[in-house]
Amino acid sequence: MAGNTFGKSLKITTFGESHGPAIGVVLDGFPAGMELDVQDLLPYLERRRPGNAAVSSARKEEDLPEILSGVFEGKTTGTPIAVIVRNQDSRSGDYDALRDVYRPGHADYTYHQKYDFRDHRGGGRSSGRETIGRVIAGGICEIFLRKMGMEVNAYTYSIGPVECKADPLDYKEALRNETRMPDKEANEEALTYIASLKEKGDSCGGVIACRIAGVMAGLGEPVFDKLDADLAKALMSIGAVKAVEIGAGTQVSRMTGSENNDAFGMNLYGVSKKTNHAGGILGGISDGDIIELKVHVKPTPSISVTQHTVSTEGEEREISIHGRHDPVIVPRAVVVVEAMCAITIMDALLTNMHARSEKIFDFYNREDH
Amino acid sequence: MAGNTFGKSLKITTFGESHGPAIGVVLDGFPAGMELDVQDLLPYLERRRPGNAAVSSARKEEDLPEILSGVFEGKTTGTPIAVIVRNQDSRSGDYDALRDVYRPGHADYTYHQKYDFRDHRGGGRSSGRETIGRVIAGGICEIFLRKMGMEVNAYTYSIGPVECKADPLDYKEALRNETRMPDKEANEEALTYIASLKEKGDSCGGVIACRIAGVMAGLGEPVFDKLDADLAKALMSIGAVKAVEIGAGTQVSRMTGSENNDAFGMNLYGVSKKTNHAGGILGGISDGDIIELKVHVKPTPSISVTQHTVSTEGEEREISIHGRHDPVIVPRAVVVVEAMCAITIMDALLTNMHARSEKIFDFYNREDH
Amino acid sequence: MAGNTFGKSLKITTFGESHGPAIGVVLDGFPAGMELDVQDLLPYLERRRPGNAAVSSARKEEDLPEILSGVFEGKTTGTPIAVIVRNQDSRSGDYDALRDVYRPGHADYTYHQKYDFRDHRGGGRSSGRETIGRVIAGGICEIFLRKMGMEVNAYTYSIGPVECKADPLDYKEALRNETRMPDKEANEEALTYIASLKEKGDSCGGVIACRIAGVMAGLGEPVFDKLDADLAKALMSIGAVKAVEIGAGTQVSRMTGSENNDAFGMNLYGVSKKTNHAGGILGGISDGDIIELKVHVKPTPSISVTQHTVSTEGEEREISIHGRHDPVIVPRAVVVVEAMCAITIMDALLTNMHARSEKIFDFYNREDH
Amino acid sequence: MAGNTFGKSLKITTFGESHGPAIGVVLDGFPAGMELDVQDLLPYLERRRPGNAAVSSARKEEDLPEILSGVFEGKTTGTPIAVIVRNQDSRSGDYDALRDVYRPGHADYTYHQKYDFRDHRGGGRSSGRETIGRVIAGGICEIFLRKMGMEVNAYTYSIGPVECKADPLDYKEALRNETRMPDKEANEEALTYIASLKEKGDSCGGVIACRIAGVMAGLGEPVFDKLDADLAKALMSIGAVKAVEIGAGTQVSRMTGSENNDAFGMNLYGVSKKTNHAGGILGGISDGDIIELKVHVKPTPSISVTQHTVSTEGEEREISIHGRHDPVIVPRAVVVVEAMCAITIMDALLTNMHARSEKIFDFYNREDH
Repeated sequence: MAGNTFGKSLKITTFGESHGPAIGVVLDGFPAGMELDVQDLLPYLERRRPGNAAVSSARKEEDLPEILSGVFEGKTTGTPIAVIVRNQDSRSGDYDALRDVYRPGHADYTYHQKYDFRDHRGGGRSSGRETIGRVIAGGICEIFLRKMGMEVNAYTYSIGPVECKADPLDYKEALRNETRMPDKEANEEALTYIASLKEKGDSCGGVIACRIAGVMAGLGEPVFDKLDADLAKALMSIGAVKAVEIGAGTQVSRMTGSENNDAFGMNLYGVSKKTNHAGGILGGISDGDIIELKVHVKPTPSISVTQHTVSTEGEEREISIHGRHDPVIVPRAVVVVEAMCAITIMDALLTNMHARSEKIFDFYNREDH
Repeated sequence: MAGNTFGKSLKITTFGESHGPAIGVVLDGFPAGMELDVQDLLPYLERRRPGNAAVSSARKEEDLPEILSGVFEGKTTGTPIAVIVRNQDSRSGDYDALRDVYRPGHADYTYHQKYDFRDHRGGGRSSGRETIGRVIAGGICEIFLRKMGMEVNAYTYSIGPVECKADPLDYKEALRNETRMPDKEANEEALTYIASLKEKGDSCGGVIACRIAGVMAGLGEPVFDKLDADLAKALMSIGAVKAVEIGAGTQVSRMTGSENNDAFGMNLYGVSKKTNHAGGILGGISDGDIIELKVHVKPTPSISVTQHTVSTEGEEREISIHGRHDPVIVPRAVVVVEAMCAITIMDALLTNMHARSEKIFDFYNREDH
Repeated sequence: MAGNTFGKSLKITTFGESHGPAIGVVLDGFPAGMELDVQDLLPYLERRRPGNAAVSSARKEEDLPEILSGVFEGKTTGTPIAVIVRNQDSRSGDYDALRDVYRPGHADYTYHQKYDFRDHRGGGRSSGRETIGRVIAGGICEIFLRKMGMEVNAYTYSIGPVECKADPLDYKEALRNETRMPDKEANEEALTYIASLKEKGDSCGGVIACRIAGVMAGLGEPVFDKLDADLAKALMSIGAVKAVEIGAGTQVSRMTGSENNDAFGMNLYGVSKKTNHAGGILGGISDGDIIELKVHVKPTPSISVTQHTVSTEGEEREISIHGRHDPVIVPRAVVVVEAMCAITIMDALLTNMHARSEKIFDFYNREDH
Repeated sequence: MAGNTFGKSLKITTFGESHGPAIGVVLDGFPAGMELDVQDLLPYLERRRPGNAAVSSARKEEDLPEILSGVFEGKTTGTPIAVIVRNQDSRSGDYDALRDVYRPGHADYTYHQKYDFRDHRGGGRSSGRETIGRVIAGGICEIFLRKMGMEVNAYTYSIGPVECKADPLDYKEALRNETRMPDKEANEEALTYIASLKEKGDSCGGVIACRIAGVMAGLGEPVFDKLDADLAKALMSIGAVKAVEIGAGTQVSRMTGSENNDAFGMNLYGVSKKTNHAGGILGGISDGDIIELKVHVKPTPSISVTQHTVSTEGEEREISIHGRHDPVIVPRAVVVVEAMCAITIMDALLTNMHARSEKIFDFYNREDH
């Protein structure tokens, strides 16, 4: 069944293969009247782009987006916003050697089993290029959320064994440097680590964290469409993510109730929590605090280290994957994590408008008769 | 918006509050012709029930299910299967002291913010009793999956600092003992740990693991409805879950590509993987290997240790929660995790029937003209 | 796939067979805070009930609803509202003679083909009793809409060849009389017509009209979820409906543009239309005028006139169906049409809250930064 | 909310405005392995194109489709099939005179009310050009259905007062002539009628019929997603459609049960119906007979006859709409009706694969354990 759509009140549908004519996204349910220009999308795509020879592949991706619909005279119209990016520089010849072999850690074998079919050209639909559509849609949602006073900030928390330690974290640094770590020293340490792996033809993973500030209490729907459940799905749907943590995450399993519970208190603005182990979500509904989460990203599976595998004909083989591959995809995935969070929050925000009768009467300026 | 439904080809909708007349579930899209009797549901509900004074609350829950529809002459009919369980022994008076106060770690505050309304009776809709509907639906799906040669086995992997170490794990032991740990010694150690916390009026969390064996390759839909993304949502939607790991999970962020990639090889049955860091899912699609996952469950938030909080009127307060509360909910949540896995796998299995033209022609015995 | 749910922002799921333990409905996504009592549902169920020997079957249906969830201290809570009605007086023995034969005009054959299974007891899931869930959900929605100043009025427009001619139509009369026609004379004429058919063991159909007043302009979503498209689905999903007309309906195919177009003009309240051939919907979106529609209901298929048919074993047979069957179901279906309209309008009303950025900022009291 | 998607197992999402850069469609959930070339889409688009000065506008629409994804080496891949058509020859200057006035019979007023925004250029999203996406998706589904031995044939049944009378109907004639009527004489009569209206600057409507042959019994899901309910929604979502009839349609309201019921009998192939008033659908499920339906299309609202209307500022105005407008849109809408039927049937066909346990076990070659 159609699995290429995400969201309820707001829906994004992505399409496109890494070596087909184009990659694209349709954002449906986006409200009318917000200013939007194709230029607004470029910073998001820029953050996704391979920027530095140290951490990413050499494929040159211009990734110029074209808005095909949903924007008129500089504003959104309420109709579907379709945006495409043409694929260029797609040397699919690079992949000819892989035509009949399953790459370990990739989706080659499972796609073949499911569809009885191989698009060997760089992963086809399972390629990281699919995330271009997510980043475009996420950028549009983030613009909307910012107008409502919210900030979504994703950054690299760790690469391999190298963790951020700066206190406070320096988010501007993260936008600037190669690893997207908000810690200048950690960035340098990580670059050294990555370089050493690159030399060996190996790769590494890392952790991406995201903080969403300014979210009002009340977003998220019981009981299946909890805000954390929807975030978990959004994030686990990103190719290389193998774990999602909300708030204190994996630590909660070793805490006691008295350690883990966040005490309530009053501050200038009203009810607040004295700690935030909950990560801003209680019972699946936002509590007004900062939403905090982490995702664990696996190492890039394309490595030139020799690996054992089998061919599509069932013969055992050794392979060594050459070509333009990032030794770590974490830095480029940061903006993808941010995008999926922005889309999920905006969807929840729209859906929450239906929670109370009284507010609906007010919305339509109708008295309760 | 309606957030009480989960699934696509197969949908479950749960309803009911902990102290209302009944808790229930509607399972829609379940195929006709499978033998089903109300008795088949009892073992699942039994596993969810508070069984032992050491680890759970004293609330007596008979939880006798009644099938209202969808089964005729001992077989499913293809129409919605509705099952309810009447609430009994619901001393909501126990909760009067909590009428105007927000319990830390609970959904009281967020529900109030969202709906401008308090159902103070034991959490109302956010109560763990909601999971009765999930366990019933999950049980029905598990019966179906077993007929197809699949096994879904969830168990307690750790409670607080106590982890299972038995090798091999003893799944029968897990069905028998109080903690649901497949390791006799770990169970005893955990019971001691729980007893010490209970004495202090505190609680603890733990980790639940699940293994799904016998799943064919090909289940899961790219790109948002990946099998792991749907599992992540299913599991994170369970009340106290704060992290979900697939396969090697959080460990992948510190592994190198050459460590993490699972090499392919051939065995008697065909293509196989030499390790299973992927947890049986590659690119969001099952690879034929055992699906392995873990969830981290937070400590029960209801503790008698004194906590700081605020009232609904915004006054600072101290509370100590007495009543029938489990010092750890992990053992009772094991079958809930298993249920959500079974529902997700069965949904994916139905959806996957649409993947290939050729197979659809065959299904309908129509030649390609 | 799960086909027992209707709606998007607001979802209703019905379950239950005519001769199973109970019929029910889950209404999910209904806003919190509206006063609701089980008594409020009785007038709607009363209108669905067989009231008069002249026009309906003798089956005694008490149809006492029980609210299982979603209402606390007299108000909706925002959680799913589940309501069931126990089946009583279900002499399924009446149907034994039909166990192995397909009744013409019924779903016996098609259900058997689809599910390889017969629930011969009065149609099982395809019975008119399924509409009890619709009427309950529709009643709850109608209470909400009335609080917003809207009125949904369905009535019998014609029975067989007998049409309403009264001008103005007398809606109170329709609530009172046996045929639900807002025209006293037509009612009497229709009763005579029905009596003559009953004598012959035959049945007849009719037309139900519905007028929805007070609907603001703007409801309905382009391009597939147009308001008229959703109404058409809602109405065609009622068992015996074979045609749906919006506004001038079938007449438009013989009109010219200059006849059919509704000229705009200004009145005291703003823009208005001088005629309403559009039936209150333009381009799939409500225009502020009265929404007008009609459905054509086929004659009750259960007749004692001898009919030719086949058995489940493929033998040709003659049958004559005796038992408690309405010679016309139109009067009892009036409230079902009204219910489906109310549900559809309320769903559209919730969904429309997402149309404009500016209004969303206002809703959350957030300025555009 | 996102209203631009139709379907469940198979989903189509359309996007694009009449005078924006492009119109497009994403078809998600289409099975892998079917041969498909962009050339296959041309005949469908050709049938939608203005072909003859007598019956349609002079706007030259090349409508060359480009497949952006989902097809590789001449076969569908199981991933979303995205197709776009660039807008050309869009003289939006033609519409400047209409910038501040609401055209009667159009969606100008309702879109403005909903979105607080005018895209005055030829209707924007509410333009008939949106149907290009439907026709492309419908064409792809029709190719699939034909491979399974099904035929979907839509044709013009009447234009204004002129009805087809040929017996048998000549479907090849319909593909050839200007009105798409399967009756040479009716076509000529209709052309004369249209010419007379054109001279007066007026327009007319008509009826489109569709016959779907070769459909197996069992398609359609109780109770809301009945096959006729889904068809009704699909068809009523086409811009100018104001009524939908299934089988005997509006006639059923005047028939008796003994007239309307279709007697069952046996023929060479098994169970058959002696008449087909049901239109091939009983209880919402296909019965194996030909599916027959009709839609009533309103006259083109753009006419040069002077009409009364109001401006966006609330001033009363007279307008006369000039430009390239079809005096009747029925002939061009025939292929749109056919497309929506094909999409709906294919969606039902996929969904029906889940109906029976036994067949699912067989599909996966797993025995019932």
